[in-house]
Amino acid sequence: MKIITLLTDFGSFYPAQMKGVVLSKLKDRNVTFVDIAHDIPPQDVRAGAFALLSSARYFPGGTIHIAVVDPGVGTERLGIVVESCGHFFVGPDNGLLLPAAKSLGQPRAYKIARAFEASSTFHGRDIFAPVAAMLAEGQSPQCLGPAVRPKDLGFGETKKTANGIETTIIYVDRFGNLILNMRKLPSSDVSLKGIKLRKVRTYAEGRRIEPLITLGSHGFAEIAVNLGSAADAFCLKAGDRIVLEEI
Amino acid sequence: MKIITLLTDFGSFYPAQMKGVVLSKLKDRNVTFVDIAHDIPPQDVRAGAFALLSSARYFPGGTIHIAVVDPGVGTERLGIVVESCGHFFVGPDNGLLLPAAKSLGQPRAYKIARAFEASSTFHGRDIFAPVAAMLAEGQSPQCLGPAVRPKDLGFGETKKTANGIETTIIYVDRFGNLILNMRKLPSSDVSLKGIKLRKVRTYAEGRRIEPLITLGSHGFAEIAVNLGSAADAFCLKAGDRIVLEEI
Amino acid sequence: MKIITLLTDFGSFYPAQMKGVVLSKLKDRNVTFVDIAHDIPPQDVRAGAFALLSSARYFPGGTIHIAVVDPGVGTERLGIVVESCGHFFVGPDNGLLLPAAKSLGQPRAYKIARAFEASSTFHGRDIFAPVAAMLAEGQSPQCLGPAVRPKDLGFGETKKTANGIETTIIYVDRFGNLILNMRKLPSSDVSLKGIKLRKVRTYAEGRRIEPLITLGSHGFAEIAVNLGSAADAFCLKAGDRIVLEEI
Repeated sequence: MKIITLLTDFGSFYPAQMKGVVLSKLKDRNVTFVDIAHDIPPQDVRAGAFALLSSARYFPGGTIHIAVVDPGVGTERLGIVVESCGHFFVGPDNGLLLPAAKSLGQPRAYKIARAFEASSTFHGRDIFAPVAAMLAEGQSPQCLGPAVRPKDLGFGETKKTANGIETTIIYVDRFGNLILNMRKLPSSDVSLKGIKLRKVRTYAEGRRIEPLITLGSHGFAEIAVNLGSAADAFCLKAGDRIVLEEI
Repeated sequence: MKIITLLTDFGSFYPAQMKGVVLSKLKDRNVTFVDIAHDIPPQDVRAGAFALLSSARYFPGGTIHIAVVDPGVGTERLGIVVESCGHFFVGPDNGLLLPAAKSLGQPRAYKIARAFEASSTFHGRDIFAPVAAMLAEGQSPQCLGPAVRPKDLGFGETKKTANGIETTIIYVDRFGNLILNMRKLPSSDVSLKGIKLRKVRTYAEGRRIEPLITLGSHGFAEIAVNLGSAADAFCLKAGDRIVLEEI
Repeated sequence: MKIITLLTDFGSFYPAQMKGVVLSKLKDRNVTFVDIAHDIPPQDVRAGAFALLSSARYFPGGTIHIAVVDPGVGTERLGIVVESCGHFFVGPDNGLLLPAAKSLGQPRAYKIARAFEASSTFHGRDIFAPVAAMLAEGQSPQCLGPAVRPKDLGFGETKKTANGIETTIIYVDRFGNLILNMRKLPSSDVSLKGIKLRKVRTYAEGRRIEPLITLGSHGFAEIAVNLGSAADAFCLKAGDRIVLEEI
């Protein structure tokens, strides 16, 4: 049983076309699809990279991850396959795949040099889905093209400032939790926009609508409001740069 | 082929991590995942209980249902497995699982006493998914811990008032239909906010944008507006308490 | 391994009930479900027909497509099975299935004459899901009822006007792209609401927020705004009739 995950910013019905193509290409349809997410903010490669990084590690070796957040579709950007620790990542060479691949081990990337009959706007269906089917049937990524050095993408740096730590919101989840590009909690107490963030282990330690900071289950610091939405309370969104003031 | 359903208020990409964990733990990956819902209003245990109650009965015996709407994650609340009529329900002991389990037969509940290496904020992935995998491989829920008396959760009572019936909206579906905590239609004609609700068998019996009351396919009374949204027309939402006035 | 796709306007948790019914009816549960879409605008049969038309062709022969956008549920409208080029389409006889079925080959339609124990409001679960299970187990659609002439549904006509082409928006996708009922690009340059639409092969050929017109991967013309939303920029939505002015 092969596992194929899909992550896109496509919303509805385009991901199904990708699955249809995979199923059409496979001789043995013994495949389990898992949708990671299709509601990545449109064309937000970094948010997609975060969701993939957070999720890929929970799948067993041999899993094939198709990920497509692809503002450059139809241009000269490459399509690539990245192999890391027995996982395969298929998608555009725009940095989307690298954080996840590097978190698992030492990635090796291959250019998709083989020609596919492809539309100009939907390589997820016309190139990456057929490539995933080839990998699922046991073909080696080396058969697709030469090794390349893939584009990488970080989540930006945090910066020590006079009064605190400057950091970026990389993702806002469904609860309005603000996920930061920090892999640990600040050592001192901090406030945001003058409001103290209580350091907690889990949301329910907070009082009702108390602002909190915790280390999320994905390993990144996140700002939450117990039984409320930090995004709404602080009027913040993905991509915003904020300062955690030391107090 | 084992069937595992998932119901959460997690929105995007966290449910995929739960599936990844299940697939990683299984020796035989011959499993079909069915997502019941991941858009339960955040932390609305009652709405989640309604969706699970409405849906579980349509699955065959042996199905494992993982359900997580869990405002108390990381606190002392228990994790439980409830067995009822050959179905297994896995999740927090906050009442979420009981209406569905009781609708199928006589439920027996077991505490998840076994220790898991778990984050403080995501027991769905770190505890309930591995437990589901153990059940899928044939382990008995008794192996996980002792029998417990699980927390129950009703949908509240309807109340006869001077001028009608007081009832609660337990769910608003995608069409704006208001699902009430009433298992049958009122015997007399009723109005809501002074507007008569026509008793119908199906929506299309109504004229365009006529307010209706019908017994939904889930067995609860629901207020609808033909080709419109009752939630918008009456400015009502889940959790609201309303009076159906007898006329 | 049988493939069953689902397309509805049901949103959350009702599609899972349909899958539960299919799994309960099957003796051999070796089935792969693919959700095409469950967020079709409520009761917009034409938008559903477009999504099904765009997607069905990517699945292999033998696929069973259950599609339910069904404002007339519980009335005298028929339930049908349409067979075309080895695909089976199951749903209401309101035109939803025909564009997809006709795009694959010569469709033959059969009335679902067999009686099912059905609610008045959810034939997707009570009739179409059991029918799909019967087809998945190899029953012929002829066993369900007599051949019928199914209702058809077009996407409306484009019209040559004094100053351009009148056309209808049949779908707005997640990126705000406006999909038109035109199967090719206009031969001359065109503008919309006085703003020139640049003819491109792919979105990234446009400058940031430049309005574009391209032939989408589904074979219909679409208006896009590079790295933005055409629906927002032009204040337009599905169903709107617009004029592409020749310039």
